[in-house]
Amino acid sequence: MTDSLPRLTPSTRVRRTPFSRRVEAAGVSAYSIYNHMLLPTEFRSVEDDYRHLLSAVQLWDVSAQRQVEITGPDAQKLVQMSTPRDLSTMADNQCYYIPAVDENGGLLNDPVLVRLASDRFRVSLADSDLLHYYKGLANGFALDVDVFEADVFPLAVQGPLSNRLMGRVFGDEVTALESFRHRSVQLFGRATTVARSGWSHQAGFEIYLEGSEHGEALWDMLSDAGADLDVRAGCPNSIERIMSGLLSYGGDVTLDNTPFEAGLGRYCNLSATLCLGHAALAEKSRPMRQIRAVEIPGDPLPAIGERWPTAGLNHGSAGFITSAAWSPDVGANVAIGMIESAHWSPGTELVIDTPEGPRAAFVRSGFWS
Amino acid sequence: MTDSLPRLTPSTRVRRTPFSRRVEAAGVSAYSIYNHMLLPTEFRSVEDDYRHLLSAVQLWDVSAQRQVEITGPDAQKLVQMSTPRDLSTMADNQCYYIPAVDENGGLLNDPVLVRLASDRFRVSLADSDLLHYYKGLANGFALDVDVFEADVFPLAVQGPLSNRLMGRVFGDEVTALESFRHRSVQLFGRATTVARSGWSHQAGFEIYLEGSEHGEALWDMLSDAGADLDVRAGCPNSIERIMSGLLSYGGDVTLDNTPFEAGLGRYCNLSATLCLGHAALAEKSRPMRQIRAVEIPGDPLPAIGERWPTAGLNHGSAGFITSAAWSPDVGANVAIGMIESAHWSPGTELVIDTPEGPRAAFVRSGFWS
Repeated sequence: MTDSLPRLTPSTRVRRTPFSRRVEAAGVSAYSIYNHMLLPTEFRSVEDDYRHLLSAVQLWDVSAQRQVEITGPDAQKLVQMSTPRDLSTMADNQCYYIPAVDENGGLLNDPVLVRLASDRFRVSLADSDLLHYYKGLANGFALDVDVFEADVFPLAVQGPLSNRLMGRVFGDEVTALESFRHRSVQLFGRATTVARSGWSHQAGFEIYLEGSEHGEALWDMLSDAGADLDVRAGCPNSIERIMSGLLSYGGDVTLDNTPFEAGLGRYCNLSATLCLGHAALAEKSRPMRQIRAVEIPGDPLPAIGERWPTAGLNHGSAGFITSAAWSPDVGANVAIGMIESAHWSPGTELVIDTPEGPRAAFVRSGFWS
Repeated sequence: MTDSLPRLTPSTRVRRTPFSRRVEAAGVSAYSIYNHMLLPTEFRSVEDDYRHLLSAVQLWDVSAQRQVEITGPDAQKLVQMSTPRDLSTMADNQCYYIPAVDENGGLLNDPVLVRLASDRFRVSLADSDLLHYYKGLANGFALDVDVFEADVFPLAVQGPLSNRLMGRVFGDEVTALESFRHRSVQLFGRATTVARSGWSHQAGFEIYLEGSEHGEALWDMLSDAGADLDVRAGCPNSIERIMSGLLSYGGDVTLDNTPFEAGLGRYCNLSATLCLGHAALAEKSRPMRQIRAVEIPGDPLPAIGERWPTAGLNHGSAGFITSAAWSPDVGANVAIGMIESAHWSPGTELVIDTPEGPRAAFVRSGFWS
């Protein structure tokens, strides 16, 4: 599968992770680069990895979700300036998925915010240097905060057997966590955050490892404890991600999109007036294009490396496809598109301009899982 | 050469460029990702590409140097806030290589700043989202500016025959340009900036293409005009870059380094007090470690994917190697290191902890070319 892919030149500019040696030993077969770091994308094959993810448990090196830490009296204020999601009632044991926006309401990132205390937050980044934005705001508004990248590296444990594996290693208090809640555990002598979260819709956790020097020990601890559970190295899986409707920042949505276009309107509290984008978002709350699940019947399509233009049956533009993968369960290509309002109703037929020529498709009422 | 490299998974999150199809047709054999975009790293082989670069002329797709445009009455003030290089005497036809720093004097980027008018600048980025920093500062200081990514894509023309090729296509006014000066030419009906600059120490130019739709036409125009000059597709070449002492942001230097540690003290005017890092830099102007040229005799070493720890003959740490390549001209591995002051004098012997075991090396008095 991977023989036809382009090659990636190693460089110190592209950071390895505390888990990279274990990922290599597990037979990683392809990568992407995410936040200037290695992100594994494939082990046995995307389809084999998908089957295993849905049936067992996987360890994912998602260190590329860089950890920006914000501490100090103005920490919450700084984060609130960057997001329309209301943070005023967030508890210390919560994680929030937050659209991060600029003054125009354009998406800068879509990180997971982890609240550790009223004056201490971590931001688990999607693929952009949001650290720079926070630094600029902190300087310009003379906020009383420290903003820095923490020596912390998320390892995700994903799949239906993740509960059993995590219970063995961390006990019932961790497996009792509800979705997007976190708690602290002792690991290698350090208070370590474990959250029920992850970039799949399978059961799962993220362990925010403190200290890069412990990466291989953590990996081995989980591998050993899960040997009878068929634990394997895995990674965010394009089939599962698309079917679950999880967005990829920089691909499905960019700075050119508002959270409303991204289908994240439920996270936009327009009374959160500290958000620098609140006035712009109030004007843009009825988008003319929006993320949609699109199904493309027929044979598997090649990997998508650039947007596929999409038309309505009247040949007018209907938007474009941003992610696509062949789903063995659906028996079709599953896709995510930014679709214009005239074409976004469920069942609307579309024509996709793929590298293999035009293909019929249709808008679904929602994602697959 | 490239068969042993890891594979790169295509994704819309990793942007293609206006020149990607021509780069593929020219037989690109490996890439890196730079500013979330494809950056070619190899065509025939790094060594073959190097020989050709030193003898002929190459077209480089360096679109990954994303173009941040800053316009408005406060444009110069905003840029000056981010750099210790004094911009007060910069002329409209100049390009400046500028260290961009945060409030601690840490490097955020090392872009080339292009001044188009007193209220209009473009920043040609190294590998970080400096757009976010400018947006944060502009919001926080309520500056009267627009900050956005322009639909502009640099194509570099590099090598000793670049003068002849550029003269044929753009005339004598372009070939008369001095180093780091630019002028405007008409191209596809648009005023287009052409500069004498580029990420090599060979003669060269950068054409800042206006409008992605003209990428292939520009490529073909230059290819056709240079057919008898053996013009080829090329890319920043690690051998030439290291021998010339050109830094790679994110690899050789990072946010943890000051411009003084990067050997860029000559660009730090500590009377440029608008720079938010000026107080920190004044305290850090005598670095305890600094970029050095390091020569590692013996057989070619494998590609460097993470820093190689470096010791003195007394076994104490001397820093680390950040870039390395085999130079056929030197007959040794040429390298860049961040070397501590006790070890940085020319001729000092070092021991490098390479993937193939310890290797003797020495500090040079300067780069090779």
